[in-house]
Order: sequence, then structure tokens, then C-alpha cells
Amino acid sequence: MENLHGYTGLALEVLKKADVKIGDNIRVIRDGEIFEGMLMPRIGLGNPSHIILKLSNGYNIGIKVKGNVEVEKIEVERKPQDKTVSVEVLKKEGLPSVLIIGTGGTIASKVEYRTGAVYPSLTTEDLYRAVPELSSIAEIRTDVLLSIFSENMEPRHWCEIAKAIGKTILEENVDGIVIAHGTDTMGYTAAALSFALQNLPVPVVLVGSQRSSDRPSSDAALNLIGAVRVAAYAPFAEVVVAMHESISDDSILIHRGVKVRKCHTSRRDAFKSINAKPLARVSNGEIRMLTDDYIVRSLDKNLKLKPNFEEKVALLKFHPGFNPQIVEWLVERKYFGIVFEGTGLGHVSKSCFESIRKAVEAGMVVGMTSQCIWGNVRMTVYDTGRDLLSLGVIPLGDMLPETALVKMMWAFGQTKNPDEVKEIMLLNLVGEYSSKLTV
Amino acid sequence: MENLHGYTGLALEVLKKADVKIGDNIRVIRDGEIFEGMLMPRIGLGNPSHIILKLSNGYNIGIKVKGNVEVEKIEVERKPQDKTVSVEVLKKEGLPSVLIIGTGGTIASKVEYRTGAVYPSLTTEDLYRAVPELSSIAEIRTDVLLSIFSENMEPRHWCEIAKAIGKTILEENVDGIVIAHGTDTMGYTAAALSFALQNLPVPVVLVGSQRSSDRPSSDAALNLIGAVRVAAYAPFAEVVVAMHESISDDSILIHRGVKVRKCHTSRRDAFKSINAKPLARVSNGEIRMLTDDYIVRSLDKNLKLKPNFEEKVALLKFHPGFNPQIVEWLVERKYFGIVFEGTGLGHVSKSCFESIRKAVEAGMVVGMTSQCIWGNVRMTVYDTGRDLLSLGVIPLGDMLPETALVKMMWAFGQTKNPDEVKEIMLLNLVGEYSSKLTV
Repeated sequence: MENLHGYTGLALEVLKKADVKIGDNIRVIRDGEIFEGMLMPRIGLGNPSHIILKLSNGYNIGIKVKGNVEVEKIEVERKPQDKTVSVEVLKKEGLPSVLIIGTGGTIASKVEYRTGAVYPSLTTEDLYRAVPELSSIAEIRTDVLLSIFSENMEPRHWCEIAKAIGKTILEENVDGIVIAHGTDTMGYTAAALSFALQNLPVPVVLVGSQRSSDRPSSDAALNLIGAVRVAAYAPFAEVVVAMHESISDDSILIHRGVKVRKCHTSRRDAFKSINAKPLARVSNGEIRMLTDDYIVRSLDKNLKLKPNFEEKVALLKFHPGFNPQIVEWLVERKYFGIVFEGTGLGHVSKSCFESIRKAVEAGMVVGMTSQCIWGNVRMTVYDTGRDLLSLGVIPLGDMLPETALVKMMWAFGQTKNPDEVKEIMLLNLVGEYSSKLTV
Repeated sequence: MENLHGYTGLALEVLKKADVKIGDNIRVIRDGEIFEGMLMPRIGLGNPSHIILKLSNGYNIGIKVKGNVEVEKIEVERKPQDKTVSVEVLKKEGLPSVLIIGTGGTIASKVEYRTGAVYPSLTTEDLYRAVPELSSIAEIRTDVLLSIFSENMEPRHWCEIAKAIGKTILEENVDGIVIAHGTDTMGYTAAALSFALQNLPVPVVLVGSQRSSDRPSSDAALNLIGAVRVAAYAPFAEVVVAMHESISDDSILIHRGVKVRKCHTSRRDAFKSINAKPLARVSNGEIRMLTDDYIVRSLDKNLKLKPNFEEKVALLKFHPGFNPQIVEWLVERKYFGIVFEGTGLGHVSKSCFESIRKAVEAGMVVGMTSQCIWGNVRMTVYDTGRDLLSLGVIPLGDMLPETALVKMMWAFGQTKNPDEVKEIMLLNLVGEYSSKLTV
């Protein structure tokens, strides 16, 4: 039965008759129509009269068993990658060891190919059933740490995730870690972990899914396969994000955690490296480095775990009509820092200068990024920039506003001395500046 | 002398000897080196021993007159476009009439090819001298309305600009209007004018310059030529932005004012149409429409001038660790509305729900956009979105956050009734939604 997990009724009958099992490459002929693909397991609530195939383009289809349906095996056994797929064979000698930590979001719940139901758990067994390819890539263990939509992720959760990763790396023999995460704030968490987990011996790969797994266009499986492959085999040891490169199902891009941003609400290729090249591409089962500029994997390295974040740091997007009294409100509430998303090369209006002066005098750190998103803050070009510099605003180069916020939260988690925080903000710790800082 | 405006000393001598004048296509041979291009006027403080040429790639160079320098005319007279360039011939019978309104920024001050000095004025004469091509495109009049860096632009300035345009359209015979504007907040002003100037009879074209005109890579001249051409000849009558299409000097893209965003701090092609095609491309002196979806030019139309904006509307970018008390602070300060830049499909954390409920109960309008920038807000997909909808948050489709802010400021400038404002926010007035609104 495990070989045809979840199938019942007519579909089960037809499949049994053909002597095929999950993972086999099969041909379904229904009233003359021909469908070819890998037989997928049925998990959950889908219509049991459908046979689920993974097509060669990566999409899944459900074929209703009705009328004259024949099934035949195309190969003796489908061998995705180089190993036989079998749910029973969970442990493979010699494969790298990868821990998948679930935190929430569609992908973390359970990669369910057919139904819309969201499962709150992520067991290793479920995972192998849903994505049989994984068992040939790594020896996988799963751990459900959190189960929240990522819009509800708070800095304290970053701390919790960082500690869980730290514990695993320090106490267990692991070759890489995958974090299944909702996509909404995945960029923020990736940046947070980048600062919290320095001197990593192995890769930490965040992965999510833009399309819920009840849709044939779900990106969950391919993203997860790419993420596990990177965790298991990549030559680098950084915090990265693994997501679709394009709207087709060909390749996964690996983005540095401090340089990545969700740039589309729904497309599968929503995640982009900003002001930086992606680190690598995963396609056809291979990891291809796109840059030489990475921190190498080495089990000899000793992780520096610095998981604390200070929440009293604000991100303010400047706009015409912006009320500078918001800045003074933050001063009154004893905030430690502000990251501005200024305009252009790093500007806010003159009407903000007095409030910024008060904030700096109160010991707050005020950093400047640009709402343009792409490009460098350069505050020596125009009077406005020079005035802001002389007020004590620190220019944050080409750092993403979101990364700058997270970094300042992290810096104030390490020290409450504003001068030390300023210094930390200007250092290039984990590639958050793509080039040498220009003011 | 006007024919060699600004040249003195050796340079003037050499040019006089060759009997060339500004606008001529000339060849400068200096110790065997050959430079070819259009002779440009000298304005301001540059080194008077340089001859300024506009090369065929659009760049200007300054050639120092020293050693053995010969100058020769390549053609009898350079004819950019189809008219003879001459500073004296400012008025051309039969050419369309275009008003250029200066508001500030590098481009508005004076298009000065060579020096770094910024001039606060923009006279028609200066303009023709600096960009001789303009005189063959339109009969131009200039008006310096404001002289401020665009980061200092406030909603009251939008009102002032809208009224000036309105007055011109109602009282004068004009075929198009160009607004020279700093690039920092040009997108915001473009959106503001789009709502303030409805039922336009002629185009209103905002134009700026990403590189100051003292740099050979300045985009000022080409952008201005493109903008004037569109103001004079385009078949549409909308508020648009005219800026470089790429980093080369080949073409200008015309973006709809409500769909455009500055997406790079320094590149000349920083402005992008988001979730929409640009309206048109200007290259080789021609305007090519890229879409059929535009509002046609017609002098029969009666402008609806609605120039008022309400400043008490805030744009809040949500992030992990976001303090929902900012929302309550806005309620206390009797703000009329909030536009959120939520995550993904339009989310904020549960921790914000209570504050949002209070804001809505206080009569505020709360709208939702996405910080992804690209894509649609869709608030019926996940629980978070549905919860926010039931709290009264209105989903703003694929409207840019900046446009949504400006629109809400404008809507509250028309009425203080929140229900009417909600209705206005959901209407597609001037193309701010690229498709039918999906919730």
C-alpha cells in the first residue's frame, strides 16, 4: 500500500493492475489522450479518483480516472537524480545530513501537491512522500520550531530560530540547514540570521513557496529540492534564500540573505538580489556558483552565535508631507535608532532636520538608506545630503532598507552604546554592503 | 558674437577663423587627434579655453585649445531635426507652443553643459542656447515657478504647480506643458498632478536629470528634448514622466504619472513603469506609442482642476518589530488616513489589528498596498488578509504605495467623508490601477 500511498477506488485499481508504484515514470492513456510523468503520492483531501502525475516541466496534473483508462510503466523504475525513490528508504548511508526547520508558511506546513488544506506539521516522512526526490539528495531530519505566517514573525522569533540553528550546529553532525519560511518577511529573517549566525561552518538556506501547494503551478517542491541540495553540497557557508529564478520551473537562484528582497506579490520569481549578483544557480541537479565572492564551507569553523535583537528601532519611509513629529515621538518613547528610507541619493526634507537633530542629541542612531531600492546612498553630492551628514546621520551605502533596519536592531542587541552601533553599521560584516562604503 | 556665445580667447579665435557657429557640425583636429560633433554654446563658468562638442553618442566633451588646433566645418550647417539652429530665431511660425515650468532640481535651474554651478533661473534664451535642438521642435516659453530641491516638495507645492498649469491651459493657447523637476520626488508630483488635473486637453510632461549637467554623462538635454517633443506632438493628454530608457543615450521612455517610480539612486534609467507598460518611447526624433490605452489629446476638453491635498495622511511601511502604537498616535493627531506598505499580498502582523480597528472606528481610511512594489494586493487568499478586510482595510490592487498615498491626500482634499474617500480610492480615475481591482 505504501507504494501507492493515498490512492483509493478506481485509481488504485488501475494503478495496481499496471503494477506501478509512486516514483515510477508512467504513461496514462485515457480515451486516446496520453499523459506521461512521475506518479506522485496522494496526501490529504484531493479527489481520490484522480491520478497525480509530475510532468517533465515540473507541473503536477490530476488525471480523472473515467472511461477507458490504461496505465503503463515507461521505465522499470524512475531514478530521479541517482537514487531509487522509496518512501521506506529514509536513511541513505553516505548522504549529507540536512535539518529542515519549519517555521510556518505554506511550504513549512506540508508540501501537499493536490489539496488546499494546510497542515501544521512537517514530518520527515510526509516530506519524502511529497517530494520523493529529496531522499536521493540528503539524509533529512525535520523539526517544527514555529508555525506562524511570516507577517507575524517578530525579532524574538529571529532569536529563537537563530538559537535552534546554533544548537544544532554545536551539538549535532549536520551538513546544512534549511529553514522553511513564509515568503512575506523571508528577506528580513534572512538578514537577521545573517547577522546572528556569523562564522557559519555550513549553509543555512531559507526557502518558501509563492504558490500554495494546491495549485499545479506550486513552486514548493522545486524550491525545496534546490534548498536541500544547497544545504547538502554548496561550497559556501552563508545564510541564503533559495527561490525560483524565473516563472518557468528550470532553476533556483541562491541569494545572499542580506541582499535579497521580495519584489513581487505573487510571481514565483519574486525574490531578487539587489545591488548584488546571486551567489549561485541550481539547475539540472547542479549547483553553479555565479560569483567567487563567498564565505567557504568548513566544519572547522566555530559558529559565533549572537541571537539578540533590540525591537526599539524604527524604519521610516520619507515622503512629501512626512510628519517629522513621528521622529520626536520615537525620541520620547526612548527608541534607540531610526533607519530612514530617504529619497534619491539619501535625502529627507529640511522640515525634518530639527527633529533629526533632537534624535541624535538624545543618543539615537539615525541611518540613511534610499527608497529607490537600487543604487548607493551618496550624501556628499547635494546640500541636503551634506546637511544631514553634519547632523550626524550615517549613510548606509547600498544596504537594503530592510537589511539596515534588521542590522540596527541586531547592533543594539549587542551594545547600547550609540558610537559602537554607528561603527557596526558602517562595517561590512556579512556582505550587506556590496562594495566599499561610499558616503 | 551670439553665434559663438560664451567663447573667449584662443577658443574664440580658432572658431572664428574656421567661420563656424554654434549648432554647426565641426571637426576639431588637435595634434593629430580628431574630434567630431556639434559645437555647443558656452554658458557660465567653464574653462574658456575649451571647445565644447556634443558627440554623436549624446555625450559632451570639452577639448582644450592648445598646441596645433584646427577647426573645420563638416556640413554647411548642422540641421538637428528639420530646422536651422539659431539662437536668434526663437519664435518659429507654425511650431506647437510649449510652456516649460521650472520647479527646481538640476534640470530646472539651467541646462548648463559644462560647469558645476547651479543657476536658479531658466530663461527661454538660456534654454535655446544650451539645447539648440529645442527651437526646431516647439515655440517655447519658460516660467520659473519654484526653485527647490524636490525632497523639499510638499503637497502645497503640488497645489501650486497644478494651479499654474490650470491657469496656463485655461487662459493661454498652449499645446503642451513641461515641468522641470528634481528627480527625488518626481514620481510623487507626477501622481499628484495626475489627480489634480483631470480631463486634460494637452500633455503635462515632468522631466528631470539624474546626472548634474556638469558631467559629460548628463541626461538633461536628451530628457528635455524628449519631454518637449511629447508636450508638443504626443497623441495623448496625460500627466507623464519623460526620462532615459537605458544607460545609453538612445531613447526616452514616457511613463504614466501614477505608475512610475524612481528605482535607482543614480542611473539615468532610474525611472520605471511599475505593473504597467510605459506609454511611449521617443527615439530618433519620433514618438512611438507602446500601448493603445491612453487618453487622447483634444483641445475641446475642459480641464477639471482639483488642486487640493490634505497633508494628514500617512504612509507606513510595515516590518517585523513594527510598533502599532504609531497608528494610535496618528489617530490621536486626527489624521484622516493611512496607507500601509504591507508585506506580500497585503499583510501586517496580528499585533497591528487592534490599532487598525481603533483607527477605522475613529473614521480614518486605512488602505493596503504592498512593499513588494510589483504585483497585486490580494487580501482574500490568506487569513491575515481576510481579517484585515473585515477590519475595514481597503485593498489597493496594484497601485504603487506612493501613488496610493498621494491619491488619499488628494481624495481627502476633495471630501472629508471617509466613505466617499473609500469609494474614490477604489475607482480607477487616471490609470492608477493597471487592471480591474482584485480584492
